[in-house]
Amino acid sequence: MKRLLLTLTLSLALLTAAAGEHPSLMLTRSGVAQMRADRGKVPAFDASIDRTIAGADAALRERIEVPVPRDGGGGYTHERHKLNYYRMVDCGIAWQLTGEERYARRVADLLAAYAELYPTLGFHPVTLSKSPGRLFWQTLNESVWLVHTAMAYDCVYDYMTPSERERVERNLFRPMADFLMNGMEGNRENNKIFNKMHNHATWATSAVGMIGMVMGDDALVDCALYGSDRTGRKGGFIRQLDYLFSPDGYFTEGAYYQRYAIWPFMVFAQCIAHNRPQLDIFAYRDHILQKAVSTLLQLAYEGRFMRFNDALEKGYDAQELVYAVNIAYNADPTDKMLLDVAARYQGWVLPSDAGYRVARDIARGEAQPLRFVSRLYRDGREGDAGGVAVIRSTDPALNSALTLKATSHGLSHGHFDKLTLAYYDNGNEVLCDYGAARWLNIEAKYKGHYTHENKSFAMQTVAHNTLVVDEASHFGGVYAESMKHHSDILYADFSRKDMQIVSARETNACEGVAMQRTVAYVTTPFLQYPLILDVLRAESDAEHRYDYPMWYDGHLVSLNFPYERALTAMTTLGSANGYQHLWRQAAGRNTESGTSCFTWIKGDRFYSLSTATTPASELVLAVTGANDPDFNLRHARTFMVRERGRRDHTFFSSLESHGTYDLQVEQSDNLTASCRAVRLVCDTRDYTVAVAEYAGGHRVVLCLANATADPAARHRVETPEGTFTWTGPYDLSMN
Amino acid sequence: MKRLLLTLTLSLALLTAAAGEHPSLMLTRSGVAQMRADRGKVPAFDASIDRTIAGADAALRERIEVPVPRDGGGGYTHERHKLNYYRMVDCGIAWQLTGEERYARRVADLLAAYAELYPTLGFHPVTLSKSPGRLFWQTLNESVWLVHTAMAYDCVYDYMTPSERERVERNLFRPMADFLMNGMEGNRENNKIFNKMHNHATWATSAVGMIGMVMGDDALVDCALYGSDRTGRKGGFIRQLDYLFSPDGYFTEGAYYQRYAIWPFMVFAQCIAHNRPQLDIFAYRDHILQKAVSTLLQLAYEGRFMRFNDALEKGYDAQELVYAVNIAYNADPTDKMLLDVAARYQGWVLPSDAGYRVARDIARGEAQPLRFVSRLYRDGREGDAGGVAVIRSTDPALNSALTLKATSHGLSHGHFDKLTLAYYDNGNEVLCDYGAARWLNIEAKYKGHYTHENKSFAMQTVAHNTLVVDEASHFGGVYAESMKHHSDILYADFSRKDMQIVSARETNACEGVAMQRTVAYVTTPFLQYPLILDVLRAESDAEHRYDYPMWYDGHLVSLNFPYERALTAMTTLGSANGYQHLWRQAAGRNTESGTSCFTWIKGDRFYSLSTATTPASELVLAVTGANDPDFNLRHARTFMVRERGRRDHTFFSSLESHGTYDLQVEQSDNLTASCRAVRLVCDTRDYTVAVAEYAGGHRVVLCLANATADPAARHRVETPEGTFTWTGPYDLSMN
Repeated sequence: MKRLLLTLTLSLALLTAAAGEHPSLMLTRSGVAQMRADRGKVPAFDASIDRTIAGADAALRERIEVPVPRDGGGGYTHERHKLNYYRMVDCGIAWQLTGEERYARRVADLLAAYAELYPTLGFHPVTLSKSPGRLFWQTLNESVWLVHTAMAYDCVYDYMTPSERERVERNLFRPMADFLMNGMEGNRENNKIFNKMHNHATWATSAVGMIGMVMGDDALVDCALYGSDRTGRKGGFIRQLDYLFSPDGYFTEGAYYQRYAIWPFMVFAQCIAHNRPQLDIFAYRDHILQKAVSTLLQLAYEGRFMRFNDALEKGYDAQELVYAVNIAYNADPTDKMLLDVAARYQGWVLPSDAGYRVARDIARGEAQPLRFVSRLYRDGREGDAGGVAVIRSTDPALNSALTLKATSHGLSHGHFDKLTLAYYDNGNEVLCDYGAARWLNIEAKYKGHYTHENKSFAMQTVAHNTLVVDEASHFGGVYAESMKHHSDILYADFSRKDMQIVSARETNACEGVAMQRTVAYVTTPFLQYPLILDVLRAESDAEHRYDYPMWYDGHLVSLNFPYERALTAMTTLGSANGYQHLWRQAAGRNTESGTSCFTWIKGDRFYSLSTATTPASELVLAVTGANDPDFNLRHARTFMVRERGRRDHTFFSSLESHGTYDLQVEQSDNLTASCRAVRLVCDTRDYTVAVAEYAGGHRVVLCLANATADPAARHRVETPEGTFTWTGPYDLSMN
Repeated sequence: MKRLLLTLTLSLALLTAAAGEHPSLMLTRSGVAQMRADRGKVPAFDASIDRTIAGADAALRERIEVPVPRDGGGGYTHERHKLNYYRMVDCGIAWQLTGEERYARRVADLLAAYAELYPTLGFHPVTLSKSPGRLFWQTLNESVWLVHTAMAYDCVYDYMTPSERERVERNLFRPMADFLMNGMEGNRENNKIFNKMHNHATWATSAVGMIGMVMGDDALVDCALYGSDRTGRKGGFIRQLDYLFSPDGYFTEGAYYQRYAIWPFMVFAQCIAHNRPQLDIFAYRDHILQKAVSTLLQLAYEGRFMRFNDALEKGYDAQELVYAVNIAYNADPTDKMLLDVAARYQGWVLPSDAGYRVARDIARGEAQPLRFVSRLYRDGREGDAGGVAVIRSTDPALNSALTLKATSHGLSHGHFDKLTLAYYDNGNEVLCDYGAARWLNIEAKYKGHYTHENKSFAMQTVAHNTLVVDEASHFGGVYAESMKHHSDILYADFSRKDMQIVSARETNACEGVAMQRTVAYVTTPFLQYPLILDVLRAESDAEHRYDYPMWYDGHLVSLNFPYERALTAMTTLGSANGYQHLWRQAAGRNTESGTSCFTWIKGDRFYSLSTATTPASELVLAVTGANDPDFNLRHARTFMVRERGRRDHTFFSSLESHGTYDLQVEQSDNLTASCRAVRLVCDTRDYTVAVAEYAGGHRVVLCLANATADPAARHRVETPEGTFTWTGPYDLSMN
């Protein structure tokens, strides 16, 4: 035991840099020694080194160019200053690993050029940002520049002469750190940002802290950790760890921005672990950073982040995730599932201590398959602002995921999407969230920014799989209103073998209307795949029009009711709140049956949504594209159930996944829905009893207590179809 | 040398079955002996055997069901009789490989049951087919049944007693062979089909020939080979080999149906090779079957068959292709690229002599990468009915393919698509052919048949990337007219390093209008990727409206001219000939420049089509979906240039592939077209001189002689931009 402790202590000592030792940010001296010794033995790491050296060699072939700042994002000077920091990092690492002086010289020369330029700079000439930078049009880019350049300087610190160091620190690093922290005469916005609880502040504090570490300036490091007043009461990295994640490691803007935010968090944490080991940063707040990484990985399907709020299609292969996964594994090498992510989705590792360890342990065969679990991820600093529930198939081979989002707004990237759901199955998005309307980096598409349609469509409620009241978005589409509230998770139970269930409530989004949604993922002995039951209840004392849009991916196969298709002319579904972007493709009513069924095909599987309707229900099919003058919107499709003049109303649906469609062997089976009927045999403010009937005389009954989530409360409901009794907020039975 | 010959002779002897020996169709005695000996040594073949035995075991667990025929395709009795032949084949092979009697017994019992049933059957009760079967609603299925069942019978022939054999041959096989060949009292259509030059006849002759071989009935085999009159002058398999493929192994219906047709050809040829080795069937007509397989493999992109005429998305993994590739390799084991197809795309092999050989040689590491080449595939029995040109990138890493289709109509599955082109690049379809409008096997979609929209849209000219005159389809959309003619390839040259070119002419499709199209795939030193130049010339003495639709996959990025987008209402582009299915999304004119540029993104690459226009040219964007009451059409998009009141007119376009779009590392480059201008500096019935200018002052000039393809003819053209002289039908220069 003593011996084990001794070994542990020794290992820790090896992992943390001696004070003033270089390198000590992403690389350590002992790490470098090991990498050099193991060159040629760990193929994935060798590839990473080769790539770095290739980048460094490319740098050496170029002229040194440190242009006077002129262009905004995408322009020449902007891109050159970005490229320069990548080049410096590559050269710095190449110097450490090869000992070839030309690499170190290039970093020193570039830094010298920057030390010439920087003192001459005022604010950047492009004045679009509230917080303009000096090298870049916004300070954020300058922080990112310094995060990288600090790593490069760390690598060549010992190579440079004291006078060289003195000059770059005096003319470049100290003024830049001061600028990031305090701004400059004429604009002090940077000081606010530096101390804010926001991911831009994470970049700024990381930059200042990292350059402080390299320069051995403890005061700067303290500012980074505890805010510019060094008290920790207003700002700083540590406080960001307290504020920017929920206790479950959920970042309020959602997975897509969590991916971006995690980057500086993990990088700076790695540097802190090396330089201030006494802080035990990875253990801070019950290992909040590890939780953040793990939550982020869980909020993905097939390696792509689940799309909600402003989100494009990104996944585990994003470079931020390589940083996050490598550093997280280095901090806790017992989490072998991280190796699976690195090996299967990323394919490259960081040229750093962390990357080396990941590559080595993958080569040792230590990776374990990433496992997905059903979980509730609470939102809010205290975990009290609702949350996102993710239900996963118990059998990983089924590969399905169902999400219910009942969070707070999610800052400026949030959508008006209270209680929206999404469904992923068989490798595909089946019920989708549109995500963001943006063509990142494509100049011709509104310069790569979020397009106007992001606000006019993607953020609006109708773009989501949830309730729209009176054709208006939640909170009237007013951000400030939405920011004041959050939905609530009423209960979630992922423990039963035959069913997983979650229920959430939203009372503020639609004035005078309370919404409650319960979704159950049910495994029956009689259906081919698990079944989803969706009970979306609206309560109001006044009459409203309720729309229940379900955005599907795939192609319509059939509808069990007559409909009129727009044949020679097509018009918009509405004029505002996102409806103006929808072409009304078809509409119909089901006068024959109280169950309206919509079947579509996606990939090699069929999906059937059977919803309880009346002859008065309007059933609408619509697609995006109207009022989209610049062709900014993607082609997205929705099936919508519309009820008019209702006070209380419950949308009840059965969603079946069924069948196989194999074009190659020309075989297909189980092409039609098994569902024979869905109906509510009781639906009051106290109780909802939902019955779904399937082929073969099978029946699934979901009993819900709407007014209380008390797990001990006993309930009894008389209905025309018999008496139902149960305990707790829900009960499921089937035969 | 003598020894080598001896070995060869011995090998040949081993490969061909002794007369009357069983099995001798897909399996041989010596083959079975080798497979048994090598069990456990060739993993891919073991997997195939395991699968077969699993199928046989499943059969043994079932009751014997040989129902009285009642249902059409997809119905119970139809599917049961299909399943029965698969079961019999599995059991027959399982018997051969394991020697376990229960497998053989099951085949014998099933055959006995069929021998009971068959004599009682008249025509099938479903009377939708002109050539109804007895077990199935159409004779085609009965032929397929017998092809399979003959294989099964071959396997258990020696196991069954002479009296058992006598009974099934008398009651089942001989009457069925007679029925397939001669029909039955009341309907003699089968006799016509049997002797037709059509792929249904290939199934029928294969079935009759194979059962004849098993029964040792040379007369039946002769009928199969030489037609029911055994003269070879009207029908039979040998004549099909003469008629159904062009000398280049091209099947006139196109790749998708060639895939289907190749199946019985290869299966029966394998049986002939085993039973009538003296015919040397695989060498017949200069190895026409090998050519057919090779051509089929070449008419694919990323393992999917190029979509033209009636085509769904099928590829190398279709089971027909497993037969074709395995048997072709067995016939010519020097073609090691076939092993690559089997290993990379198919993943399973036949449980037969051929499959064994493929699996064994893959395991020995003999596979060689499939190489794609630029080629012209002539259509027509004599190779004189036009053809399809496929231009491939010289560097396989570029992975692009450009096709020009100038064939005959392609029988009942042909489209009115003279001189259409398609472009595949970077793993994607970029300029697309819609293929067929069909949801195969999906009952809810017009019972899985070709939908009405196949005729009203998919077959029409506007659904293709070619010239539409006066909004009418080629040949007025009249099949019988189109069948009388074919386009002509004028010349094709794939030999130059900087350019590959093909030119074709069509003079019958549009009355009074001659069309000529020349496409060049040009590699420049100044563009990122090869360039495509498209010169589509129409000549007429009367005025016409000319439409030039280009169907693209991907999302519109930008247009270099102002346009009006349909914002709140959208109408159809026309009322007939496919136009009624198009929604008019947007239209504009380019009054600023004579070059109209359309840029779109597909995958991580950009494409820019720059076309020569005038201020009078109408530029239209349209999508499918109008007049499609049942949502049968897929979502397809076109950019169309429209010229009114023109006699002679030439559409000249530069299509650039450019840029990278990497969302994961958020890098993109080369997002905009390099093309600065395209124009015709000369355009007469004799000559077209097309100039395209690119960024950096680069210029590509394509000189075409329109009136003669004589390679020795010398040409001289004076233009406002100078004098051009060249020899032969074309000349390309660039700077």
